[in-house]
Amino acid sequence: MRIRLDLRYDGTDFAGWAIQPDLRTVQGTVEEGLAKVLRGQRPRLVVAGRTDSKVHARGQVAHFDVDETAWAAVVGRAQRTPEDALLSRLTGVLPSDVVVHNVSVAPEGFDARFSATMRHYRYRIADAVALRDPLRRRDVLWSRRQLDVSAMNAAAQQLVGRHDFAAYCRPRPGATTIRTLTEFVWERDDDGLAVATVRADAFCHSMVRALVGAGIAVGEGKHDVQWPRELLRAKERSSSVTVAPGHGLTLEGVDYPEASQLAVRAQQTRARRATDDVDSI
Amino acid sequence: MRIRLDLRYDGTDFAGWAIQPDLRTVQGTVEEGLAKVLRGQRPRLVVAGRTDSKVHARGQVAHFDVDETAWAAVVGRAQRTPEDALLSRLTGVLPSDVVVHNVSVAPEGFDARFSATMRHYRYRIADAVALRDPLRRRDVLWSRRQLDVSAMNAAAQQLVGRHDFAAYCRPRPGATTIRTLTEFVWERDDDGLAVATVRADAFCHSMVRALVGAGIAVGEGKHDVQWPRELLRAKERSSSVTVAPGHGLTLEGVDYPEASQLAVRAQQTRARRATDDVDSI
Repeated sequence: MRIRLDLRYDGTDFAGWAIQPDLRTVQGTVEEGLAKVLRGQRPRLVVAGRTDSKVHARGQVAHFDVDETAWAAVVGRAQRTPEDALLSRLTGVLPSDVVVHNVSVAPEGFDARFSATMRHYRYRIADAVALRDPLRRRDVLWSRRQLDVSAMNAAAQQLVGRHDFAAYCRPRPGATTIRTLTEFVWERDDDGLAVATVRADAFCHSMVRALVGAGIAVGEGKHDVQWPRELLRAKERSSSVTVAPGHGLTLEGVDYPEASQLAVRAQQTRARRATDDVDSI
Repeated sequence: MRIRLDLRYDGTDFAGWAIQPDLRTVQGTVEEGLAKVLRGQRPRLVVAGRTDSKVHARGQVAHFDVDETAWAAVVGRAQRTPEDALLSRLTGVLPSDVVVHNVSVAPEGFDARFSATMRHYRYRIADAVALRDPLRRRDVLWSRRQLDVSAMNAAAQQLVGRHDFAAYCRPRPGATTIRTLTEFVWERDDDGLAVATVRADAFCHSMVRALVGAGIAVGEGKHDVQWPRELLRAKERSSSVTVAPGHGLTLEGVDYPEASQLAVRAQQTRARRATDDVDSI
């Protein structure tokens, strides 16, 4: 059986999602919680968006596989479904900086990583002392310089589309850096913060924070509006792009197709090749 | 000269506003910061709302007095106003959990405490696992029980007015417990949290959290809608009211009259007596 977990975390005290020896990670923490609840079985989690150190999530999705006997045993003596029992017991064992807020039996063909069609991120910046709220200091970057959000947004619009984002990717041998950036908008939210909304089918490593870093350089007037797009042409990681700090970034959500398309989507994702067509730059 | 500071803080790691020996307090922290910037002069801060341990502020106001020589010296060699210089230098010396976001020379007659006409607080509760956001765990109370917000609001409406709130006050010999509660509303915010908005001319010690605690008891079905109002008749601190935890509470703002009324208002506040008329219960 495959179980889907919907979860949120404050990334401040985690060395990112992925398990690493001797470091506190979200994956390690949730897997340990599951092991307690599932009586010794420690399932491996597969996640939609592997977040880096300090990066938060409000709409993260993961799955794990469990045999039917262990799943039925979660209920214990209580009159409730295994889903409710797991949710309640995980709530009891997890630390307060990670919350599993929904547990469901995944439909046939569901894969948290490969079935996903879209990831949504937001990056938040307080670029004036008047905007700084100490209660948000863990998920909002504080900038001493005021940013020109309309210039940042104009630059962002030029990056939308299917491109080779090598300039914005930490290189991984053999991996494609072609991605479809569906939305990249900079705007002021109701509190006055400068907020980037970034949506794509998938992101390569450090891509969102590199896109944000390029936006900040434009917003501070260090580069013009054309510069982020011109970088795309280089087709290799640009050292002139500063990767923005992790703590301003939050994974807000992940989209999946309707149940009948889950397996097809997973197959397509796995087959994705580096030779895909891209939009002309 | 009298200087007004507008500030925000995350109360998590403070033992409240007021200075206490060997404890980290907001007042102590800001006064130390001012001492650094004012070269050894350590002014005493007067505050609008003395918040308890763990309580936050987004719209706190304080003042201090400084002689003109020390004030002029804040500027240093830079081409800017003393207000801008103090704001910038305080930002440099204060820790990240307290932000002074505005500095101004106070108008004649201004007193952060006694000129205030109204204090606004909010109390936030996530009463379902689905509402828990780890990024808000420092300023939102997590409740395992679902709350009946409409019952809580009906009970709250019956407390609005000028009453002797002794049932909701930690007693202080000789001090009046008569207050004018202008607004007390429970509602769901856009995120689905149960939120109390509480406004009054002033609050006695632990009053907001006692009002919230009584509301929670109604929302959980432990007491009926009439109970919070019936408690008022007792005219003494009720042990049946549980004071809600500090961390769910935030001082959102303080109102002052227009400049010409500041001194009059301060005089009125000082003259307020325990024998004031109250609304009939």
